[in-house]
Amino acid sequence: MARIVIKFGGTSVADVEHIRMIAHRVKAEVERGNHVAVAVSAMAGTTNQLVDYAVEAATLYDLREYDVVVSAGEQVTAGLLAIVLQDLGVPARSWLGWQIPIETSDAHGSARIERIETADILRRFEEGQVAVIAGFQGVDTQGRITTLGRGGSDTSAVALAAALNAERCDIYTDVDGVYTCDPRIVPQARKLDKITYEEMLEMASLGAKVLQTRSVEIAMKHRVRVQVLSSFADTPGTFVVDEEEIVEQAIVSGITYSRDEAKITLTSVPDEPGAAASIFGPLADAAVSVDMIVQNVAADGKTTDLTFTVRKADLARAGKVLEDLRASLGYADLRADANVVKVSVIGVGMRSHAGVAQSMFMTLAEKGINIQVISTSEIKISVLVAEEYTELAVRSLHAAYGLDQV
Amino acid sequence: MARIVIKFGGTSVADVEHIRMIAHRVKAEVERGNHVAVAVSAMAGTTNQLVDYAVEAATLYDLREYDVVVSAGEQVTAGLLAIVLQDLGVPARSWLGWQIPIETSDAHGSARIERIETADILRRFEEGQVAVIAGFQGVDTQGRITTLGRGGSDTSAVALAAALNAERCDIYTDVDGVYTCDPRIVPQARKLDKITYEEMLEMASLGAKVLQTRSVEIAMKHRVRVQVLSSFADTPGTFVVDEEEIVEQAIVSGITYSRDEAKITLTSVPDEPGAAASIFGPLADAAVSVDMIVQNVAADGKTTDLTFTVRKADLARAGKVLEDLRASLGYADLRADANVVKVSVIGVGMRSHAGVAQSMFMTLAEKGINIQVISTSEIKISVLVAEEYTELAVRSLHAAYGLDQV
Repeated sequence: MARIVIKFGGTSVADVEHIRMIAHRVKAEVERGNHVAVAVSAMAGTTNQLVDYAVEAATLYDLREYDVVVSAGEQVTAGLLAIVLQDLGVPARSWLGWQIPIETSDAHGSARIERIETADILRRFEEGQVAVIAGFQGVDTQGRITTLGRGGSDTSAVALAAALNAERCDIYTDVDGVYTCDPRIVPQARKLDKITYEEMLEMASLGAKVLQTRSVEIAMKHRVRVQVLSSFADTPGTFVVDEEEIVEQAIVSGITYSRDEAKITLTSVPDEPGAAASIFGPLADAAVSVDMIVQNVAADGKTTDLTFTVRKADLARAGKVLEDLRASLGYADLRADANVVKVSVIGVGMRSHAGVAQSMFMTLAEKGINIQVISTSEIKISVLVAEEYTELAVRSLHAAYGLDQV
Repeated sequence: MARIVIKFGGTSVADVEHIRMIAHRVKAEVERGNHVAVAVSAMAGTTNQLVDYAVEAATLYDLREYDVVVSAGEQVTAGLLAIVLQDLGVPARSWLGWQIPIETSDAHGSARIERIETADILRRFEEGQVAVIAGFQGVDTQGRITTLGRGGSDTSAVALAAALNAERCDIYTDVDGVYTCDPRIVPQARKLDKITYEEMLEMASLGAKVLQTRSVEIAMKHRVRVQVLSSFADTPGTFVVDEEEIVEQAIVSGITYSRDEAKITLTSVPDEPGAAASIFGPLADAAVSVDMIVQNVAADGKTTDLTFTVRKADLARAGKVLEDLRASLGYADLRADANVVKVSVIGVGMRSHAGVAQSMFMTLAEKGINIQVISTSEIKISVLVAEEYTELAVRSLHAAYGLDQV
């Protein structure tokens, strides 16, 4: 018998009526002769409500208590789905993070799964019982509840699939798969039948909100076959798989964009050994994570202009840290710009094809879009452009790489 | 340092603003130099919402899963109160039933507390930390969440006070104490300064909804000094204490009524050994609990009329059981009447005073109220009368026993 893990997100468990609908999907999987574990999110809106309560309770709240509060949502869904499954004649029981247990680090609010004990669940699989698991939560070595960060139920499901050595991990969500681009911006976007782990990882990191990044990392590490599909449609979704499974690999698989970027430029920074460290060290200490970095060589050879990007939410904090250090860093001017967007072209095919970057730069140049910063990896090229060009840049690139639906 | 347990009910934790208000009460207790444990209920309305979900999920739900669902409410309040207390500079952490643990029986939905492990809480008391405990919940020997039944947070608090050997257990609720009668019906009702465990137990069982019955049993057994008081007023409440603490004991302490009664009469039941057992046995098997019972000797000496009361919610089920057994039981007729109310007079003083019952019967007779069934214990007399007489009966008795406020 094959083991299947299924995950249902917020809108697919919006209320009891929706929970009944997904229960039928679980039942169908059981009737196909599979052993099934289901990971569930909180009912739509619940997590936001609980987060609001915590924020209202204190501006700086104890993350351990935050985890106690916000993990309650998944607990409710898990109990309800178990009840509904039993009502449909499917033996089922709910499992909370501490009951399995799903052991995590003690980084409350964004803990990492370290180990999942599967013995009890496997034993009950043999008795024909479905395991309904509260997603998003785990327990640390102190016996305190932890949560895995926003989108953490994806990670619960994939980690569970890895631990159970499952044949497949189906992630039911609001969209019916992974697209070549956000269809709200590019109506010609196509649904991909398959995508590699590496590409999915870049897409998740670079703005596509289909899967939590961490879940893709775990899927890649343990070679979990993940399928992203819609709870509201009966069409096949997108499989996230090993590169070898994809016979005809496109050079570029998708275009993403992220508006959650802000650019900081420090002018006339003394060009001497250790300058970068004395800038980025204090930022890291202030928990500001820096993404793209460019440094221009100055004409005089003594100073340089340094440009880098941070998350929009971190911009004010980063500015404060750098202002406080102005004297010791010795830069002339600090320029901040939040009106930027990061546009990325992703594809494992670019490893073996030259000219992908060149097409990108030419396409943008033809539309008169100025590139402010560039960063690349083996399978993606990201550029920072003015935010007002978002749609134009994304649509032009989508067409240029032949991704438009025919 | 004295140990104090405080319990806050639904409306006193209605929202974060209310939670902040009660946090100040907790802080004041800490500043008086006490070690404090707080038991909290779910935010007002939450438990009803969660119960509704469970009922919508299935008519006959698994009580183990019901407990998973409904216990989420107290979890949220406990986390929020811990956050707010920390924000006020009071060290605090939340404790869920399974974390302490509060070990209970496995009677899901109405479990009994069997043991509370206090070592961790006591250790943290020494560090000046307040323990915020999710009320209403515990854990069984299988590691599954249990709940203690409606009003169970009272029981959590009192059991905790017993386990911690606390000096006092303050139960903050919507009313500012225990009254001689329901003030909504008898405006002249007086707040009692003190009441004995025995009286409080009868009051709780007989319709006064101030404390969960089980909590009073535990308080009585372990001699926990319980104070019932209002979270919205700064007046002293009512102490539930040992009889010896009450110097001037009134003969009658209070009048209660319960509309949750229904009467069943079986006519011409064969008057033979084992008849009662063959009626009440099947009812008990069907989980119908029978309260008052009267049996009239028949004129012919061969048959008898049997009258008894059940809870209104159980009336249909009881009727079905008895109809099914009509042939074997051999009764002539089954008469059911849901329009009845049980009115009770309670007071430990009646142990040493004759004539209390006689005054009750005379008072009701003077008002033309017919008594249908009578049941008595050492410290209470209950009568069943037609429901339409509820207010008249209660007010007349309140006046007759000199309980009216002067």
